[in-house]
Amino acid sequence: MIPRYARAPMVAIWEPENRFRIWFEIEAHATDALADLGVVPKEAAAALWKWWATKPAIDVAAIDAIEAVTKHDVIAFLTWVAEQVGDEARFMHQGMTSSDVLDTCLAVQLTQAADMLIADLDTLLETIKRRAYEHKLTPTIGRSHGIHAEPVTFGLKMAQAYAEFARNRERLVAARKDIATCAISGAVGTFANIDPRVEAHVAAKLGLAIEPVSTQVIPRDRHAMFFATLGVIASSIERLATEVRHLQRTEVLEAEEYFSPGQKGSSAMPHKRNPVLTENLTGLARMVRGYALPAMENVALWHERDISHSSVERYIGPDATITLDFALGRLNGVIDKLLVYPERMEKNLNKMGGLVHSQRVLLALTQAGVSREDSYHLVQRNAMKVWESDGQLSLLELLKGDSKVNEALTTAQLEASFDLDYHLKHVDEIFGRVFGA
Amino acid sequence: MIPRYARAPMVAIWEPENRFRIWFEIEAHATDALADLGVVPKEAAAALWKWWATKPAIDVAAIDAIEAVTKHDVIAFLTWVAEQVGDEARFMHQGMTSSDVLDTCLAVQLTQAADMLIADLDTLLETIKRRAYEHKLTPTIGRSHGIHAEPVTFGLKMAQAYAEFARNRERLVAARKDIATCAISGAVGTFANIDPRVEAHVAAKLGLAIEPVSTQVIPRDRHAMFFATLGVIASSIERLATEVRHLQRTEVLEAEEYFSPGQKGSSAMPHKRNPVLTENLTGLARMVRGYALPAMENVALWHERDISHSSVERYIGPDATITLDFALGRLNGVIDKLLVYPERMEKNLNKMGGLVHSQRVLLALTQAGVSREDSYHLVQRNAMKVWESDGQLSLLELLKGDSKVNEALTTAQLEASFDLDYHLKHVDEIFGRVFGA
Amino acid sequence: MIPRYARAPMVAIWEPENRFRIWFEIEAHATDALADLGVVPKEAAAALWKWWATKPAIDVAAIDAIEAVTKHDVIAFLTWVAEQVGDEARFMHQGMTSSDVLDTCLAVQLTQAADMLIADLDTLLETIKRRAYEHKLTPTIGRSHGIHAEPVTFGLKMAQAYAEFARNRERLVAARKDIATCAISGAVGTFANIDPRVEAHVAAKLGLAIEPVSTQVIPRDRHAMFFATLGVIASSIERLATEVRHLQRTEVLEAEEYFSPGQKGSSAMPHKRNPVLTENLTGLARMVRGYALPAMENVALWHERDISHSSVERYIGPDATITLDFALGRLNGVIDKLLVYPERMEKNLNKMGGLVHSQRVLLALTQAGVSREDSYHLVQRNAMKVWESDGQLSLLELLKGDSKVNEALTTAQLEASFDLDYHLKHVDEIFGRVFGA
Amino acid sequence: MIPRYARAPMVAIWEPENRFRIWFEIEAHATDALADLGVVPKEAAAALWKWWATKPAIDVAAIDAIEAVTKHDVIAFLTWVAEQVGDEARFMHQGMTSSDVLDTCLAVQLTQAADMLIADLDTLLETIKRRAYEHKLTPTIGRSHGIHAEPVTFGLKMAQAYAEFARNRERLVAARKDIATCAISGAVGTFANIDPRVEAHVAAKLGLAIEPVSTQVIPRDRHAMFFATLGVIASSIERLATEVRHLQRTEVLEAEEYFSPGQKGSSAMPHKRNPVLTENLTGLARMVRGYALPAMENVALWHERDISHSSVERYIGPDATITLDFALGRLNGVIDKLLVYPERMEKNLNKMGGLVHSQRVLLALTQAGVSREDSYHLVQRNAMKVWESDGQLSLLELLKGDSKVNEALTTAQLEASFDLDYHLKHVDEIFGRVFGA
Repeated sequence: MIPRYARAPMVAIWEPENRFRIWFEIEAHATDALADLGVVPKEAAAALWKWWATKPAIDVAAIDAIEAVTKHDVIAFLTWVAEQVGDEARFMHQGMTSSDVLDTCLAVQLTQAADMLIADLDTLLETIKRRAYEHKLTPTIGRSHGIHAEPVTFGLKMAQAYAEFARNRERLVAARKDIATCAISGAVGTFANIDPRVEAHVAAKLGLAIEPVSTQVIPRDRHAMFFATLGVIASSIERLATEVRHLQRTEVLEAEEYFSPGQKGSSAMPHKRNPVLTENLTGLARMVRGYALPAMENVALWHERDISHSSVERYIGPDATITLDFALGRLNGVIDKLLVYPERMEKNLNKMGGLVHSQRVLLALTQAGVSREDSYHLVQRNAMKVWESDGQLSLLELLKGDSKVNEALTTAQLEASFDLDYHLKHVDEIFGRVFGA
Repeated sequence: MIPRYARAPMVAIWEPENRFRIWFEIEAHATDALADLGVVPKEAAAALWKWWATKPAIDVAAIDAIEAVTKHDVIAFLTWVAEQVGDEARFMHQGMTSSDVLDTCLAVQLTQAADMLIADLDTLLETIKRRAYEHKLTPTIGRSHGIHAEPVTFGLKMAQAYAEFARNRERLVAARKDIATCAISGAVGTFANIDPRVEAHVAAKLGLAIEPVSTQVIPRDRHAMFFATLGVIASSIERLATEVRHLQRTEVLEAEEYFSPGQKGSSAMPHKRNPVLTENLTGLARMVRGYALPAMENVALWHERDISHSSVERYIGPDATITLDFALGRLNGVIDKLLVYPERMEKNLNKMGGLVHSQRVLLALTQAGVSREDSYHLVQRNAMKVWESDGQLSLLELLKGDSKVNEALTTAQLEASFDLDYHLKHVDEIFGRVFGA
Repeated sequence: MIPRYARAPMVAIWEPENRFRIWFEIEAHATDALADLGVVPKEAAAALWKWWATKPAIDVAAIDAIEAVTKHDVIAFLTWVAEQVGDEARFMHQGMTSSDVLDTCLAVQLTQAADMLIADLDTLLETIKRRAYEHKLTPTIGRSHGIHAEPVTFGLKMAQAYAEFARNRERLVAARKDIATCAISGAVGTFANIDPRVEAHVAAKLGLAIEPVSTQVIPRDRHAMFFATLGVIASSIERLATEVRHLQRTEVLEAEEYFSPGQKGSSAMPHKRNPVLTENLTGLARMVRGYALPAMENVALWHERDISHSSVERYIGPDATITLDFALGRLNGVIDKLLVYPERMEKNLNKMGGLVHSQRVLLALTQAGVSREDSYHLVQRNAMKVWESDGQLSLLELLKGDSKVNEALTTAQLEASFDLDYHLKHVDEIFGRVFGA
Repeated sequence: MIPRYARAPMVAIWEPENRFRIWFEIEAHATDALADLGVVPKEAAAALWKWWATKPAIDVAAIDAIEAVTKHDVIAFLTWVAEQVGDEARFMHQGMTSSDVLDTCLAVQLTQAADMLIADLDTLLETIKRRAYEHKLTPTIGRSHGIHAEPVTFGLKMAQAYAEFARNRERLVAARKDIATCAISGAVGTFANIDPRVEAHVAAKLGLAIEPVSTQVIPRDRHAMFFATLGVIASSIERLATEVRHLQRTEVLEAEEYFSPGQKGSSAMPHKRNPVLTENLTGLARMVRGYALPAMENVALWHERDISHSSVERYIGPDATITLDFALGRLNGVIDKLLVYPERMEKNLNKMGGLVHSQRVLLALTQAGVSREDSYHLVQRNAMKVWESDGQLSLLELLKGDSKVNEALTTAQLEASFDLDYHLKHVDEIFGRVFGA
């Protein structure tokens, strides 16, 4: 976890205090179920919850001190709780293994993280949507291969991003479901020493599904899918960040990351406004993507389980979720405040002297009955002049002055071929597809 | 594509002939829609389908020869079709771009591949289920960290694999949906030169959804998710393959990959039966997993599109699907014919002289009122003797002869602690969770 | 292997014929050594080489047909050779295992591939050097974060690429050394059935080092390092390709991939020259990079060896080397013929009305005794006017007309601050560092 | 950075204090050079070093407080130094850019980290060598595919590991050289505002090479190679860790991670000694390997530089080096104290009733003149009996009792075929290759 790329609420999920709170809830709910089954006294469970109702602080240092002696984290925790609660606490954890607590706790932490990431996506989607409608009809040049192609709108770029992140939201909801399971099944998953109804009870209380078949641990294909999904979302962040970086290039300058008017250092070199936030997002995306592979390597544990996955998860559990949460927040800020320059978009759109409309003229000529070969030749001879003038000449004006062209098309028809509205006539429909009616 | 790791039907999906067939269908359905819209004559579409009804062979060499001249694959194909169909074919492709055809075709190929992989999973699930029920109550030692823990059954191992591959099937169905979209939207996705209803018609005919907003290309987050999902499935293959490799180790030998009785070379060294198929699967899993990352890097195309994703997909489109299809087939064969040795499982289970039951004895002593410390001490002093005898002594016999133990537990109680059924009592319930009632 | 991304000589290394030729040489040299040691008759070795001297064709189909029966590739090969050579051939392979042949053969193939890649790098370095000197003093704007910074030369960009690929050459030479070892050490590497002198002889004849300690196989950390190195080289290819893609953007257009004057399709839309080769290289780099990870996962074979590495190497052995060879060749072609536009570079350099020199003016004012704060204010008030004019106004002209500035700096001093030579004065020294005196 | 997988000295390299110390040295050495060149007063440099000679504490909190205002880390640091040193400090940093300081500092940190890792490798090599000689002739079964093959010694396993880590050391030395460069070249690397001799002076003082051509930043192919090398080393750690995990399996138990006699929890289930350290190392290897890919993606910065690499390096700079340092230390501890059980090795070696010698008998029979087919048949019919007895029968005894075998081989010859020394006769030579004479 890199503090500068971290936000407090997501960090809190991975702090010892939250872990211990979840442990307590697992143990206390399990004790409830054990009491219902008559395995432990009802008073045992009641004592736990009574203490919990006092909203006790979790003394992480005290627990750590016990662990330093016992060399076992769950036992240290249970010992500390027993010190607080008293004698009834000795019925806790009956028939359970540490993994029952640890793996179910990880499931809770990952669902908490997933919920936060889903909320991040919702915020981002709302922001993108607002910017999309704001610039629904702001014309800008569409570029394939970095080269001018045909006109689009800035709103369409945003609509594309919206649709992409809406898909990512759906994927994350599925991935959340994948890791939201509870396993309280004992040393090798056979429930030898604990009734399956305990698992069912705890799962229901924690909002988890039961793990149909576990092997001391919850199977790691679930986690692999979760982290792979975060990797895909990170890749989408990179895409939108890259778009902004491109738009902010000195020669393009159709949009810029926000800077406050008084921002120091930018005045003597007013052009030197660097897209540092989106460059940063590009790097963060590389990290989150990279975490998908160790998560996949974690799947093939030996037999009923080994512990090789654990160290990996100590890294990527916090790192992937904290980084992605930060990145989604940063991306939201970038899009929210993005400075958009429609005039520059228009200027760039016209930069090539109207060459971006050459395809449309070609079509008009063909539709007017000129053969494909002749149409091509007519457009070509004028287009080349525009190109050689570096956009100083206008294709429309040259075509107007070409008698062969005039034989086929009227001035009005020619001008219609240079009409931006031709390209924008389906923007409404696309917006309807993306944002609903 | 490595021929020895490839099966013909999956390979066929990626062969030029299949690609050209899909291209034709896209173009012909589009022509239908254009005819309905009055853009092209109805006869144009009819002519295409009439020719198609003759079940014409696709002359790949002829198309390649044309491409060698035109330097453009789609134009070459259209030219060849026009040669076959005649003059009406000139209305094909009106207002479309190559990417409309190429990206929609890739969507069709990937859905075909996904369907084949889903069928592979179904076959594998059926096989695993059969072996699971066959060995539902075949006891075997559960191992955590490679060390004997407590008893499970071989059927439970299979049930775990079943549940894992059932999850993978669900993930693949979702991933298939993700890549099953059709885009016919023109040079930058604005439908400037083609009516969106053409896209809708072609999508419906091909069983695809429409791409809500495209940018000449279908967005690559869809493909990234698809290949990441294949990577997760491959990791599950590695897990089950690793299980078999472990079980076949000389010292374990609880199961073996099938070998025919007359298989050459195995007789002079009859122990030298190597788990080469599952070792091979382990390697194949590494490859499929590795393809997820370039797929994720493909997401951040520049602006409306660049072509950097294309070369990556020429590799991983075929390689990931063909390899995974082969691996699923091979894994199915391995599980189907796996030689399972219950006697050896029993022998290994008893290898430690009953030490695997020590936890259970400890619990019995505690439940009989012995303090936790004393119980531990009683079990320990006998367990250490068994351990030092390398499993020659029996823990049960030693406990029977320990007077302190006898004070707390009867012989019957002691024997009950060594009862395998104690561990298997919930197998039915777990099977019910996994396979349904 | 994707035919369109493959060149024949590299492909030939991975074809069965080359493999069989290497196998023969290993076997024949080993037989020589065995004959010298008196293990087999001298005539046996002589017979092999006598036949080899006839430059026999390798009948791959015949060998495959034998393998279809024997189910063993090396035995099939030996059988076929025996059919050609006659009875003396039975002494071949004495005391050897298949892995001795297979792993040593892979070492030979990888060194052949490495040599070809080193030659590719040499060609590329020569090309880059030529272009570097050609444009040693062609001024162009240096960009950090995609934003104009200070002037550099196009030659410096090339010099940077040269230094990077020279480092890659050195790395590849080291990686080649890493995989150039010979192991002929028997079933578990103990030389139980074969004298270590056989290994030494074969190694010397094949130009390999002996593997100090093998375990039937050559350890896979060597191969991991080799493929990781290819991944780094691929990343450098991506860097240079990305530079070209940026330079070719419509708004920048300082360089372009070569197109022949008559190249079809480019005339009606003369601006639509897409950097498809460098986009393609970007994708190829993703693939080669991706192969590094399965190569690293191959290292941890079980005990003395398992065969999980083999399938991975069947993919990445050919795929990584063939793709990288193709990519280096393509990149060489791109740089060799790159269309460089110095006029456009100059135009872009001046695009911001001289703002790129503002730092230099600031320094001049400070050196003339103006306080840092005042200097900043003086530059700022003129710079902002230029910025707001979108580069229509000239910073130099505005400064000349600013009386406060005139008090501190003469016109000559001001003009000196806008002198490009100031930035280029160390180009010679940098070239000396990179290319030598 | 995960505290439990971190050692203090490596962590210290990445702490702010170390960074600021390096910054100071870079700045002060640069001021020296600038003074020698007459650009700044000699007193300026002297004042800096005079203050430094007082061994001042670095007040990280104070610097952070300044950065909170200036929003610029290097300026904050310079301001704080100036507060300490006084007026002469204003000559620091003349003509330099932040990247000059930051990138050169990273080079120093990475060389410090590399030196620590090289020392780790030296320690590990010494440990492995000691264990290798200790068990140079301790026989154990060699296993291919997890199946018994032929005898080796435990010392040979160690020798293999030694050779592998010796190669890794050599690779790391090369990787260290790759990242040990100094760049003080200004905003785009042209030395426009600073003399190259400053760079040369600082480089020499810091023990770095000069960066021949930089572009504000040191090129990232250097760092990619460095982190890729760490990934290969991690993979070797995984290999040796996996070997230990296999040897500790209950059924194999030829070696165990050290446990202290009184270690709690191991007595009631004395067999339950889990190889948790080597499992942990397996997971750590996955992490370090995974960092290679974002490092490679960092290479293709845009034009003269963007800042996308920076966030990646904030993660992987510390995480990869700290994790690898910890893992090497842990592996050294595991090997140092590894409990090796020669008796169990012998027992396992004999487990198959001597079948591992069947190849050797086959050879003896052939050398005695029996045809290959007959030899095979003779061995086979006895081997199968042994196999079917599950190792209870002895191949040697059966062969002794087979009259057909007796016709060809004397008892002494038969016994010689079962002689372990046959397999160990070249151990000396292999040790000589690995460890030197």
